[in-house]
Amino acid sequence: MPEKPESGPIGLSAEAINQWIKRSPFNSFLGVHVNYCHDGALELTFPIRPELRQFHGFAHGAVVAAVADVSCAWAAAHMVGNVRTAEYKINFLAPAEGDRLIGRSQVIKVSKRQVICRSDVYAVKDDQEKLVATALATIMPVE
Amino acid sequence: MPEKPESGPIGLSAEAINQWIKRSPFNSFLGVHVNYCHDGALELTFPIRPELRQFHGFAHGAVVAAVADVSCAWAAAHMVGNVRTAEYKINFLAPAEGDRLIGRSQVIKVSKRQVICRSDVYAVKDDQEKLVATALATIMPVE
Amino acid sequence: MPEKPESGPIGLSAEAINQWIKRSPFNSFLGVHVNYCHDGALELTFPIRPELRQFHGFAHGAVVAAVADVSCAWAAAHMVGNVRTAEYKINFLAPAEGDRLIGRSQVIKVSKRQVICRSDVYAVKDDQEKLVATALATIMPVE
Amino acid sequence: MPEKPESGPIGLSAEAINQWIKRSPFNSFLGVHVNYCHDGALELTFPIRPELRQFHGFAHGAVVAAVADVSCAWAAAHMVGNVRTAEYKINFLAPAEGDRLIGRSQVIKVSKRQVICRSDVYAVKDDQEKLVATALATIMPVE
Repeated sequence: MPEKPESGPIGLSAEAINQWIKRSPFNSFLGVHVNYCHDGALELTFPIRPELRQFHGFAHGAVVAAVADVSCAWAAAHMVGNVRTAEYKINFLAPAEGDRLIGRSQVIKVSKRQVICRSDVYAVKDDQEKLVATALATIMPVE
Repeated sequence: MPEKPESGPIGLSAEAINQWIKRSPFNSFLGVHVNYCHDGALELTFPIRPELRQFHGFAHGAVVAAVADVSCAWAAAHMVGNVRTAEYKINFLAPAEGDRLIGRSQVIKVSKRQVICRSDVYAVKDDQEKLVATALATIMPVE
Repeated sequence: MPEKPESGPIGLSAEAINQWIKRSPFNSFLGVHVNYCHDGALELTFPIRPELRQFHGFAHGAVVAAVADVSCAWAAAHMVGNVRTAEYKINFLAPAEGDRLIGRSQVIKVSKRQVICRSDVYAVKDDQEKLVATALATIMPVE
Repeated sequence: MPEKPESGPIGLSAEAINQWIKRSPFNSFLGVHVNYCHDGALELTFPIRPELRQFHGFAHGAVVAAVADVSCAWAAAHMVGNVRTAEYKINFLAPAEGDRLIGRSQVIKVSKRQVICRSDVYAVKDDQEKLVATALATIMPVE
């Protein structure tokens, strides 16, 4: 069971994040939408556009990784405000087949200099979710 | 000094990789071009299109990570043929400011079940390269 | 919620693992004891001997990482039998203060060529557990 | 080619590090000796004691990881003074067979809040070095 962050969110609401997404070209291009965020848990989703696919028609791994990165960064932003991704590691578990990706991230630990987050990425095909990747990330607060 | 792979390339030439890239929607969308690959070392590049940028105008981290992923995967494909990315870890070192990204990857070790690769990602601004990320990846041969 | 492994354990019981630990010098030196393993979840523990501490008296980070590595490897062995650790990534979250370490690992995905596991490491001081690290690992089945 | 750190070492010399090692129980137990450090490059070594081996007689993976962790941390300390390891990722490349381990680390980037390092770990058998692991680490300066 992940440790609860030491303090409550002083960062951004889902609504505020969705406003920021519109002003961020890459998030906006992907069509990222945050469904919810509370207590360091966040869910976001976007459709798998044709140009995001690899040779076999699955979402490209780099797009799956984008889900992990973006869902961790916004979960951290929800807790602490302005952030940047310092580093992450991702394991790919299955081909990302379907028409939509979902990222579910969880803040594990908030400290002064870093926010540690985990994210699971799911591909949705015929309304069935499949876990396709899992990631562990360090997000840094930015003044 | 990384260990030389145990065997010479049985995989793809730069020319063959550039042909595959044209048939791979995400690589093609990015405009990936492999400049060279030999002895497990590979260089590729693509322009930073407007929709690949984040709020401040830098290339989004997920796009920087795509350079690392793709450059490692193609370096491995150059050595062993058909592959998929199993996992990687990336550290972001500086904002990816400029008009073009370059990935330089190096195969560290080829074994039967995995190819270990490293990649450094550079952003190019006013013809000056800046190291913006470094990554370590496991690529798996696929039958 | 992590995906359930595709098949039930064909590997080692907690009792069998504890027997193997006695025959493995480093595990035996650490005094590793597996408390339970079932359905891909495993818990193990060992005392923080004086020589395992760093300058300030906490368990050294390399010892904390050993908990993560060993708990992931044995969880995978529980599922699939003989294994070796291919790679992992660990984030350190707090100083490992106390007299004992606990590793709780969970198999996330079993496939033919790799077992993906997660581990949380806790230090126990005055009977209070504190989360001190979290890791994500790739374990490979060995014939 | 890794970027040169922005500033020269303000941290510890090899001699000073070797003094600190004597006062650090785990480093001292391992018998870590720093052979050199300059310009962010560091080499250290220690013998593979019997209790550091795994079932087959190789150095245990956790001990190989200790080489990576410790060599990155001391390389960073050489550059910036007092540090702690924030996170790392390691890939195991070959069994660590022999009587001695060597870690060669290189600082890739020094910034105010983090030092990014790489380390290659070698096992020495019959005076022959073999690359057995490679790691990428984030080390944090501590006041």
